[in-house]
Amino acid sequence: MVSDSPFLLAGVSLLSALQMGYLARRVGWARMAHKVLPPSVSGPPEFERTFRAHQNCVEFYPLFLVTMWTCGMFFGEVTAAVGGLVYMIARHIYFNGYVKSSKKRLPGFYLTLAVFALLSLLAFIGVLRGILHKYFHIHL
Amino acid sequence: MVSDSPFLLAGVSLLSALQMGYLARRVGWARMAHKVLPPSVSGPPEFERTFRAHQNCVEFYPLFLVTMWTCGMFFGEVTAAVGGLVYMIARHIYFNGYVKSSKKRLPGFYLTLAVFALLSLLAFIGVLRGILHKYFHIHL
Amino acid sequence: MVSDSPFLLAGVSLLSALQMGYLARRVGWARMAHKVLPPSVSGPPEFERTFRAHQNCVEFYPLFLVTMWTCGMFFGEVTAAVGGLVYMIARHIYFNGYVKSSKKRLPGFYLTLAVFALLSLLAFIGVLRGILHKYFHIHL
Repeated sequence: MVSDSPFLLAGVSLLSALQMGYLARRVGWARMAHKVLPPSVSGPPEFERTFRAHQNCVEFYPLFLVTMWTCGMFFGEVTAAVGGLVYMIARHIYFNGYVKSSKKRLPGFYLTLAVFALLSLLAFIGVLRGILHKYFHIHL
Repeated sequence: MVSDSPFLLAGVSLLSALQMGYLARRVGWARMAHKVLPPSVSGPPEFERTFRAHQNCVEFYPLFLVTMWTCGMFFGEVTAAVGGLVYMIARHIYFNGYVKSSKKRLPGFYLTLAVFALLSLLAFIGVLRGILHKYFHIHL
Repeated sequence: MVSDSPFLLAGVSLLSALQMGYLARRVGWARMAHKVLPPSVSGPPEFERTFRAHQNCVEFYPLFLVTMWTCGMFFGEVTAAVGGLVYMIARHIYFNGYVKSSKKRLPGFYLTLAVFALLSLLAFIGVLRGILHKYFHIHL
């Protein structure tokens, strides 16, 4: 371990993994509250919304890790870590909104997309600058 | 950021994350076209095929990242990055085929498996060589 | 590639990716055995348990990679790699148990949670130590 390691990215990644574990737990609690026994995933609307809210978080989690780490390694670590924290807040709003109604999932979802757009853009700038430097000796 | 960083792997990872976001969007469009409101995931056959095509991409995406990065770090970066691009093409063929019919998912799927087999094999060679070198002082 | 690279983490990651591929294959075999044609995911109870067992592994796989790698990079590589192997065994027990009955998924699942708790805790210690060192010049 070198002292220059990306501790902030690692820390936010760990926190986000904990959040994902917590959201999985919420699905387990919804199973109990609505008496939906595994392996069934059908039940009252509130259970199905909780289940889909978690699935959507699962679907996007690897995309989040890729964009945050690429942005953090090749553009700026603090920017990416802050973006990661905002993503976690967006997912929290999304999940809690979706549990209440399908429509209330939207504000959190749009914030999620905004974070993705920003992290991806900055990551692309960083990677492109790196490729131009390494392979074409163009220094921006 | 050092100039020797794996920019190609990072670039392909970012592109693949964008592709995954695009495929998620396609499911959203299929929801609209077939009037399948969240959180429901049941509907006409074409919607269900689109939904499952995306789910399959989600299931395999972390495996793809692991094999591409391991191959890229411990065998060869250009090989892994090219493999990653071929994987993306395979997933594109798979998804579009599956939307049309269950049977048409197969060519893209077999190409996906072929890329996995190759990336995994090369990655194992690289990791094994590294372990023999680092822990057993055997230089291949 | 430097000889000090985390070959053990890479090796366990590759093995776990292969395991995930194998579990996906088991779902495919269960489709054939119970005549559940894609894109359908409904069928006899044993098929649905097999399907959900795989889904649960998919949901947790990125969390596993994050905690194992963070623990491995910032606490100790051998500890994390051994934890990763135990996680793979736990998932094997979980999957095979779940295929038999919903109740039999529990022992493997609890072992999974125990590995997560340990890897996360050690990873947090490592990351916190790193942050204190790098940003606050506190050396523990």
